Amino acid sequence: MRVYNFSPGPSALPLKVLEQAKAEMTDANGTGQSVMEMSHRSKDFKPIIEKTENSLRELMGIPSNYKVLFLQGGASLQFSMIPLNLAASEDNTKKKVSYMETGIWSQKAVEEAAKYTDVIVKASSKDRSFSYIPEGAKPEASDVYCHYTPNNTIVGTRWPYIPETGSVPLAADFSSSILSEPIDVSRFGIIYAGAQKNLGPAGATIVIIREDLIGKAPSWVPVMLRYDTHAKEGSMYNTPPCYSIYMIGLVLDWLKEQGGVEGILKINLEKADLLYSYLEASKHFMSPVEKTSRSLMNIPFICREENPEKQKEIETRFLKEAAEAGLVNLAGHRLVGGMRASIYNAMPVDGVKALIAFLEKFEKSL
Amino acid sequence: MRVYNFSPGPSALPLKVLEQAKAEMTDANGTGQSVMEMSHRSKDFKPIIEKTENSLRELMGIPSNYKVLFLQGGASLQFSMIPLNLAASEDNTKKKVSYMETGIWSQKAVEEAAKYTDVIVKASSKDRSFSYIPEGAKPEASDVYCHYTPNNTIVGTRWPYIPETGSVPLAADFSSSILSEPIDVSRFGIIYAGAQKNLGPAGATIVIIREDLIGKAPSWVPVMLRYDTHAKEGSMYNTPPCYSIYMIGLVLDWLKEQGGVEGILKINLEKADLLYSYLEASKHFMSPVEKTSRSLMNIPFICREENPEKQKEIETRFLKEAAEAGLVNLAGHRLVGGMRASIYNAMPVDGVKALIAFLEKFEKSL
Repeated sequence: MRVYNFSPGPSALPLKVLEQAKAEMTDANGTGQSVMEMSHRSKDFKPIIEKTENSLRELMGIPSNYKVLFLQGGASLQFSMIPLNLAASEDNTKKKVSYMETGIWSQKAVEEAAKYTDVIVKASSKDRSFSYIPEGAKPEASDVYCHYTPNNTIVGTRWPYIPETGSVPLAADFSSSILSEPIDVSRFGIIYAGAQKNLGPAGATIVIIREDLIGKAPSWVPVMLRYDTHAKEGSMYNTPPCYSIYMIGLVLDWLKEQGGVEGILKINLEKADLLYSYLEASKHFMSPVEKTSRSLMNIPFICREENPEKQKEIETRFLKEAAEAGLVNLAGHRLVGGMRASIYNAMPVDGVKALIAFLEKFEKSL
Repeated sequence: MRVYNFSPGPSALPLKVLEQAKAEMTDANGTGQSVMEMSHRSKDFKPIIEKTENSLRELMGIPSNYKVLFLQGGASLQFSMIPLNLAASEDNTKKKVSYMETGIWSQKAVEEAAKYTDVIVKASSKDRSFSYIPEGAKPEASDVYCHYTPNNTIVGTRWPYIPETGSVPLAADFSSSILSEPIDVSRFGIIYAGAQKNLGPAGATIVIIREDLIGKAPSWVPVMLRYDTHAKEGSMYNTPPCYSIYMIGLVLDWLKEQGGVEGILKINLEKADLLYSYLEASKHFMSPVEKTSRSLMNIPFICREENPEKQKEIETRFLKEAAEAGLVNLAGHRLVGGMRASIYNAMPVDGVKALIAFLEKFEKSL
């Protein structure tokens, strides 16, 4: 029996997508091969990667002066690649860049950028445990670029606005919110996302980069960490993560059937509203996130119990019983504790309803 | 109908492995999830990555003072990571390292190492188009490390010996020959391999590294490119390529059923002997590789025809008709042309026999 999987990533995939992958496992498109067995340069694989890119361009409305790259290494490698490609210099002079600090991942991005740039943290919500998004965050006009994290997976916040950066290129880690709502790609210099939340299985990283930002890396940057390497070769400088790219293509097909990004936003709003409304009304559980900054994708919640020992006991029992009821991976991140429901695009409304029904039942035991 | 896939990578996987992946696609081990959906830190995924590592340790006889890392980026990223971790310095002083140049991939490794080290090419077979392996190659005793490519995928050569390096750590790109024959891991400082040839689908890279070589990278090396980052976190600093790791585990199970590396070597020798014997005897086709240096995994062959135009015409017709007969991906690498049969572990003896039967039939048309 399939469970409802609230994992923050890798996370649930649409059942229809898995069933298609299953059907094609030993013979895809009549080629007599699994997609896993196809040479990345073969005529069999070419239409797969092209279809995935075209679907992404169509769904996100990516302008033609942006490249789409299929890379590896996750957002963590992008934390290095962005400063290395956009701001590092031949002689190690450190140029000024702005970072917005709204969670643990954006802090990691800052740490890595500090190796190659002079990082200024222009806005931070660290003062209140990252439970909100700062207002009016923006870079200096002279900054080489500005970086932020539109959705913070661990703490469950979402930027309700895109920072105004003028002519400063905006870099954004969309790992946990890509394709969950429409965005105006033209406002960004670079958008990146690990695949394992809203796109497909772990192992592929999508980078959408404005062409004029490619080709600025100094000569000492490793060849695999240069955007120009991958842009020139259509993501085939070396073997790309072919099967993950294929799976992303299937997920994007499914997303089109949901009415594209506009269609999925309606469903995502419905799911988030259901769960936040329940938490607002609950006597025993609550959201720790400030109202205007709440994520549509990652919804942390804690037990209102004030005795920390008793709180921990209730949360542990909740997680255990929820898992037994087929609602899995609801534990909060190990750094923050509590619970968290990650309800990415592939989580059906029925999954959220099942979670709320279980929470209501569980509350009766308290 | 399944084809015989002679692709150099990504390449054929055992049908039994694909069928197991298919059966587990929507519900693996009764978890109600696909392996693609499992959180990498979940109790469901932990036994999968542990099993894969343990199987690899058992099959290769990896000593306990070596770490096994599951990384991303392929051999191409290792071309950078090896010099960055083993020889780069805080102040960019370039230390001496030895490289053996026996093909296009080892040349790429040299190029990348030259960014961070003082590379000495100690042995090269470039003078005869990489058609042989130089004898007696060894580093200077003062070199920080020595690098070579035991099997050269494009030109189809195999080192018949392991270079004697004394106390100089030996780094080896085993991408196209890992697990094809027993090796004494203790003679190496670092062994690495992209998964997409003998291990599983593209997107995972195996690194086997002696513990004393970890932790030497200068502070400016990107966090994701440091072996210590991944060694400390058991390959879970960030999300690893989970599904590829699962597939590798299934391939290793299958390999055990073939009698392990000793068992598969017998089969690999049988396959290679069949094809080389045919080529030796053939009037129309031949191996361009010197006899003592021939690969067991990648067997290039060319048409003996001396008129280049006619040769090209025959080869083109051969590739077309072979593909129609279900023998696919037999084209040589775009840089060298001709034909190439990659016959990795997963290629059954029957596949090689079918190729020879087709070659014999084709010769009658010449």
